[in-house]
Amino acid sequence: MKIGLDIMGGDYAPKATVLGAIEACKELGADQKLVLIGDKPAAQSILEEQGFSCDNFEFVHTTQVIGMGEHPTKAIVQKADSSISVGFQMLKEGQIVAFSSAGNTGAMLVGSVFSVKTIPGISRPAMATIIPKLKGGLGILLDVGANADCKPENLMQFGVLGSAYAELVYKIPDPKVALMNIGEEEEKGNLLSLATYPLMKDTELFNFVGNVEGRDLFSDQADVIVTDGFTGNVILKMAESFYVISLKKQIKDEFFTRFNYEQYGGSPVLGVNAPVVVGHGISNPEAIKNMVLLSRDMYTSGLIDKIKQAFQPQ
Amino acid sequence: MKIGLDIMGGDYAPKATVLGAIEACKELGADQKLVLIGDKPAAQSILEEQGFSCDNFEFVHTTQVIGMGEHPTKAIVQKADSSISVGFQMLKEGQIVAFSSAGNTGAMLVGSVFSVKTIPGISRPAMATIIPKLKGGLGILLDVGANADCKPENLMQFGVLGSAYAELVYKIPDPKVALMNIGEEEEKGNLLSLATYPLMKDTELFNFVGNVEGRDLFSDQADVIVTDGFTGNVILKMAESFYVISLKKQIKDEFFTRFNYEQYGGSPVLGVNAPVVVGHGISNPEAIKNMVLLSRDMYTSGLIDKIKQAFQPQ
Repeated sequence: MKIGLDIMGGDYAPKATVLGAIEACKELGADQKLVLIGDKPAAQSILEEQGFSCDNFEFVHTTQVIGMGEHPTKAIVQKADSSISVGFQMLKEGQIVAFSSAGNTGAMLVGSVFSVKTIPGISRPAMATIIPKLKGGLGILLDVGANADCKPENLMQFGVLGSAYAELVYKIPDPKVALMNIGEEEEKGNLLSLATYPLMKDTELFNFVGNVEGRDLFSDQADVIVTDGFTGNVILKMAESFYVISLKKQIKDEFFTRFNYEQYGGSPVLGVNAPVVVGHGISNPEAIKNMVLLSRDMYTSGLIDKIKQAFQPQ
Repeated sequence: MKIGLDIMGGDYAPKATVLGAIEACKELGADQKLVLIGDKPAAQSILEEQGFSCDNFEFVHTTQVIGMGEHPTKAIVQKADSSISVGFQMLKEGQIVAFSSAGNTGAMLVGSVFSVKTIPGISRPAMATIIPKLKGGLGILLDVGANADCKPENLMQFGVLGSAYAELVYKIPDPKVALMNIGEEEEKGNLLSLATYPLMKDTELFNFVGNVEGRDLFSDQADVIVTDGFTGNVILKMAESFYVISLKKQIKDEFFTRFNYEQYGGSPVLGVNAPVVVGHGISNPEAIKNMVLLSRDMYTSGLIDKIKQAFQPQ
């Protein structure tokens, strides 16, 4: 199987991405080959520098790059030979089974929806992140920014997506799914959470355990926490800032260490017909490696089929 | 001047509240007298135990208590002789100039609006909290839960309220006001923040400095951060959980110490015609003392008049 990586995405590309590709390559199975999409001569020169054979990879040369600040839809359409556009074209055509990039998040989202398309029955794909738990292990938070405004039906679907992702990729059996809210009781919340709670309470699609609050993020109350993309993005960035603060203050603690995004590689785009992972713009080789491995795990775990089944009309 | 304190509010009342009242009393000016509202014999027996003269206070005996879990509006109406209802009645009649309680937050909000009323021109009062800044000092975040669903006009008004509060009570000159959002650019956000940004950009009512993100909460980018009560409440509780985690992990750091809510006493209800402060349910005597002193400072700083002027028709 071939796994695609955009080597032009991220603040330190292509150096960090190619170095990350080398590390990922060492952990891939014999039947798994990494396809480096981007500036082929640049990649080959980095590989030579590192004394790592180019034969370990396949290359697809592209001549354009979508910048971090570019308008996603415009860029995807206008830069047909960009590493992101070509990657999605390959994913669509089945030349690669998974695609990841630490580049423009918006372009990755738009590219996912334009190329491999949203899984039938799903209104809006979501992006998920990992939340370290205080007592060890981890949880999933979604959406973290793909959908700034959500409807109750969206949050319901995020519950299905997050539950499948936690179960298949992170091996959490029968994941506990909770709704982020501003009170524990059913009658607490904003219009969105008030309308969502009864839907979740009645569902058999996932194991709903009720509302959680901002203080419960790191507790074991829930494995999957569902929220709208605005709230989720604020939570994600606030958690990231705590990690940065703990580094600055040289706090040596295993819990804070587990906030390190490099370990997790990136945020999956859940709800589209193929594994897509978006890495942090500041990804270093370790993060790139884990991003590639996450996209591989999303494929080998059968996540996409599981999600398709969940949304198939009964 | 007489300052009212609900001695029945909070998980450790009346012991913690009366002990807090003793501490507050020591810091009040000669012309400032604390009125203890609640179970008079219980308060007197605690004071005797502490060897602190009852003459330092005035007492208003009440026979009912609004519990933490009670429905706010029902409780306020049905328990006319509760410490919260009596406190608001006294505030309305000018028998006290400020009122604070660590009791039922909803009842404190409803009580504020029912008794002293919202300041003309303000649609919805807001609750604010203190955010410690990484480089020292502090900032204000509002709304933190009074309004789970907001309109752009509400956020605009929160900007005015927060700015006046930061300037008069925390002596921050010309406070920088920012909008909590999921991107720095004007075109980023959800429907609410997208509609709010242009209003704030054009205002002369406060010093708007643009959008901030979850990661900027503890930076010096803004002194006042405005958001809806859902997002603000999630942020507040997440920040509280980080403080609790830092305690559990025995992280000794001045920054984390400044998360301690006890130092700040409580959240003001901003936008009503008198100083009202709501304390944390788990308030200890130190927190109660600071809650009382905050309500006093809100009065002596002329905050209410400043807010009234800002909302007066030109």
